[in-house]
Amino acid sequence: MRWDGWGDPAKATGKLPGGVKLLLTAVLGHRPRRAEQIALADVELTTPPLDAADVRALAAAVGAEHVRTDHEARVLHAGGKSTPDLARRRARTQAAPGAVVLPGSEAGVATVLRVAAERGLAVVPFGGGTAVTGGLAPDAGEHRAAISLDLRRLAGLERLDDVSGEATFWAGTRAPAAEAALAEHGFELGHFPQSFEFASLGGFAAMRSSGQNSAGYGRFDAMVTGLRVVTPTGTLDLGRAPGSAAGPDLLRLFLGSEGAFGVITQVRLRVHELPAERFLDAFTFPDFRSGADALRHVVQAGTGPTVIRLSDEAETAVSLAQVGSIGKALAKGCTAVVLHEGPAELARARRAATTAVLTAAGGRPASRALAESWEHGRFDGPYLRDTLLEHGVFAETLETATTWSNLHVLRTAVTEALASGLGAAGAKHRVLCHVSHVYPTGASLYFTVVAGLTGDLAAAWEPVKARVNDAIMTAGGTISHHHGVGTDHAPWLRHELGEHGARLLRAMKNELDPAGIMNPGTLLTRT
Amino acid sequence: MRWDGWGDPAKATGKLPGGVKLLLTAVLGHRPRRAEQIALADVELTTPPLDAADVRALAAAVGAEHVRTDHEARVLHAGGKSTPDLARRRARTQAAPGAVVLPGSEAGVATVLRVAAERGLAVVPFGGGTAVTGGLAPDAGEHRAAISLDLRRLAGLERLDDVSGEATFWAGTRAPAAEAALAEHGFELGHFPQSFEFASLGGFAAMRSSGQNSAGYGRFDAMVTGLRVVTPTGTLDLGRAPGSAAGPDLLRLFLGSEGAFGVITQVRLRVHELPAERFLDAFTFPDFRSGADALRHVVQAGTGPTVIRLSDEAETAVSLAQVGSIGKALAKGCTAVVLHEGPAELARARRAATTAVLTAAGGRPASRALAESWEHGRFDGPYLRDTLLEHGVFAETLETATTWSNLHVLRTAVTEALASGLGAAGAKHRVLCHVSHVYPTGASLYFTVVAGLTGDLAAAWEPVKARVNDAIMTAGGTISHHHGVGTDHAPWLRHELGEHGARLLRAMKNELDPAGIMNPGTLLTRT
Repeated sequence: MRWDGWGDPAKATGKLPGGVKLLLTAVLGHRPRRAEQIALADVELTTPPLDAADVRALAAAVGAEHVRTDHEARVLHAGGKSTPDLARRRARTQAAPGAVVLPGSEAGVATVLRVAAERGLAVVPFGGGTAVTGGLAPDAGEHRAAISLDLRRLAGLERLDDVSGEATFWAGTRAPAAEAALAEHGFELGHFPQSFEFASLGGFAAMRSSGQNSAGYGRFDAMVTGLRVVTPTGTLDLGRAPGSAAGPDLLRLFLGSEGAFGVITQVRLRVHELPAERFLDAFTFPDFRSGADALRHVVQAGTGPTVIRLSDEAETAVSLAQVGSIGKALAKGCTAVVLHEGPAELARARRAATTAVLTAAGGRPASRALAESWEHGRFDGPYLRDTLLEHGVFAETLETATTWSNLHVLRTAVTEALASGLGAAGAKHRVLCHVSHVYPTGASLYFTVVAGLTGDLAAAWEPVKARVNDAIMTAGGTISHHHGVGTDHAPWLRHELGEHGARLLRAMKNELDPAGIMNPGTLLTRT
Repeated sequence: MRWDGWGDPAKATGKLPGGVKLLLTAVLGHRPRRAEQIALADVELTTPPLDAADVRALAAAVGAEHVRTDHEARVLHAGGKSTPDLARRRARTQAAPGAVVLPGSEAGVATVLRVAAERGLAVVPFGGGTAVTGGLAPDAGEHRAAISLDLRRLAGLERLDDVSGEATFWAGTRAPAAEAALAEHGFELGHFPQSFEFASLGGFAAMRSSGQNSAGYGRFDAMVTGLRVVTPTGTLDLGRAPGSAAGPDLLRLFLGSEGAFGVITQVRLRVHELPAERFLDAFTFPDFRSGADALRHVVQAGTGPTVIRLSDEAETAVSLAQVGSIGKALAKGCTAVVLHEGPAELARARRAATTAVLTAAGGRPASRALAESWEHGRFDGPYLRDTLLEHGVFAETLETATTWSNLHVLRTAVTEALASGLGAAGAKHRVLCHVSHVYPTGASLYFTVVAGLTGDLAAAWEPVKARVNDAIMTAGGTISHHHGVGTDHAPWLRHELGEHGARLLRAMKNELDPAGIMNPGTLLTRT
């Protein structure tokens, strides 16, 4: 992965598609130009490497070759991949963990936590490194230093129960490796968030990830049937039965725990047979409101699409521009993309049922090219974001969710907060929005912002984001639908959970991690 | 509700159906005869009513007319409705709460908890009174006395969001009243456990109930989108969005909390439109194993039945006997009942898809009368149990769940534990089993036991049940699929959660209920 951008350097062309360049010029009022770039070696780290005694103690736990204090390893574990993260990293000075520790077994993880607690080191678990809400910040809290606990060596398919459709993976397994291992046996997990190419299964669980196929296969939460978690005070093995009334479901406490309670080492997942058939379709709607209503009718009727998503007018225009249809991009309308999968007859029946509902709700079939373009480019958003950043253009995403009846209120509140925040910063901007995850009672809203911010981009964005977060709270949304809390959202989580909810979360952390070494500042603000 | 039996006295005929009588004679080797019965007034309570100072303090909180210390109220709140519960109650001496307190508002609940904590009284929340695992035992723990907190006055539909399909009810609302209120608006909750006629919505949430339509509409867990919970240290309002990554889902901690953390006062639920069409079908399979495989294929393909259940050979025989088909009852084979619902076309497509899967797996269509008989009698099991008890015949149910690959191992383990336990007690018996809840990765197993136990039935059953619980743990099942933990299963919950899971549960209770007044002995054994 790139140190100063998303993913595969080979895919990072640094070139802006022509249509996007035109749109940007129209939105920002000037032609974007390539900005100066620095090299990894030029990054100045503001935190020292771990001292020799600490390194020796950790080396005794996992082997000397698995404790890294070199510049490259530290920079690569210095945070996540949000736009502010990358803007900070490109600004030359950067905090980094004192060392990167790579345990090769669950016992090794437990030993590292013991050593860290004894020596007063904070531990930041690191999966695929794709976090975008600050949860990978190398924050030592009240401790001497922070170490990054990289789980890449704890990887692979441990067990497949092909009768029950359950697969047990080590937490550091990257999503593509997991799908490849399952495909050998004719199975699929079917979890495809935008971070798919790099993220780890343990990360999905820790962050309560949700993928693009969530309509069909559910959030990652719904896929998890078991977890093993190493905490500073003991190891938990949770998820005994597919359905249970054996007290509260403690497994759910660790979905969304973001490394603040311990380290997820193993994930047991519901998998399904590779679908025999798939149908990809596009529909257009006169406006966002009628499109959202149509999606609501589909999910409430339960017709069973695997993917169903709706782009607003602005996002539809950009999508059309990206496929070169500038003319159509100027027309009004919203595009929905729908995918149906499964055994052939069932997939066909589901598609027919969804089509009937969408059509009855005012949808009209649209060119399949739009759906194919979405599918083709669905993991490429972050590369475009990087290219924009290299041209000095700020682009970021944020997301929330609410009930169907509150959806437009929330969308308006976020849009207005962005407009007023960016207006206060004197930045021209464009906001795109889509619905990508639907539930019987509500849906997510995913916003993409392109803004003419200048100077210190991370600093310029912070007050805008704070304004948006306040607006989400006031308008009844959740602080995150699938990006998580990290350090960025922690002050708002307290609001979302209420005083007593926050207290309960703190009590659980105190029980499992009494020394407070696990990912300080994530989830819980220091009080 | 009857003090010494299940439900509606008018439905308790006390008469055994002829076919059942014949079967019992065959199983137990003697003709069951009516046993002596005692009257409510004859019950001797072993615990005193609350003293006058306590009653005055509680009366100040909720009004004098809502604090009851009369004999009838205390006996009616003296426990749940398991067979041992009823056997004990009919044995003349019985522990009872010191008083029954009926708050009329959420503020009233909070005040009662405050008064109870100040005065050293334990609080046992009471919804519909249908608990079967000892969670309503009037156990004062280390406190002076226990009070029953009856939520019947906190009832009714508070709010219906017909766009989002969400209904907010007060927790004391009984299930039939909830369905009636929703039906007025064209909606349905669709939660039909055997306790449907009497249980409350708060009770469903507190116990992690699962209903007969779980294949279509999910467990009660899945229906809950929001909760309000009054604890001794504050009130929580949980469930902000239909999907969220805002840290661990704290709402899930209170599903299955069984009154040990606080009192659920309000439940927000996902509801759906009343189905336009319904198709009820029956299938036969050569044996339980082939039938279970067929159910597995259906749920893994996701064809979408509302109900799908499979009775083993013994239960199929009794069902046939109950509808008067004694001849067929002697034949081998297992019956599956399947219900499809929804908008007409979708229900038809779902039915066709399920039928195709079941047929391919060896199922053959059977008489609809079997399915209709199941549906007609689906809430009547407890009445038959009472009648058996009145004839001195012990009948009880127990349930567990596991993965598909472990299902037959678990079934054999439970059956053998019952046989050896009842054999040790010298009791002839018959065990019936069915699968009534299916998941992609596994299923529940529900056992009905009829046994020729004699003497003190509750005492005679206890070692048998302990042997079954041990066997469930050894064989990898959960201690309860939907009956809950209560006091009966608490020693095994510790095993199921492991040392660190149990410790976490205890930490949560200590945080929310530091004085330990909430339902002592439920969920957590005293250490």
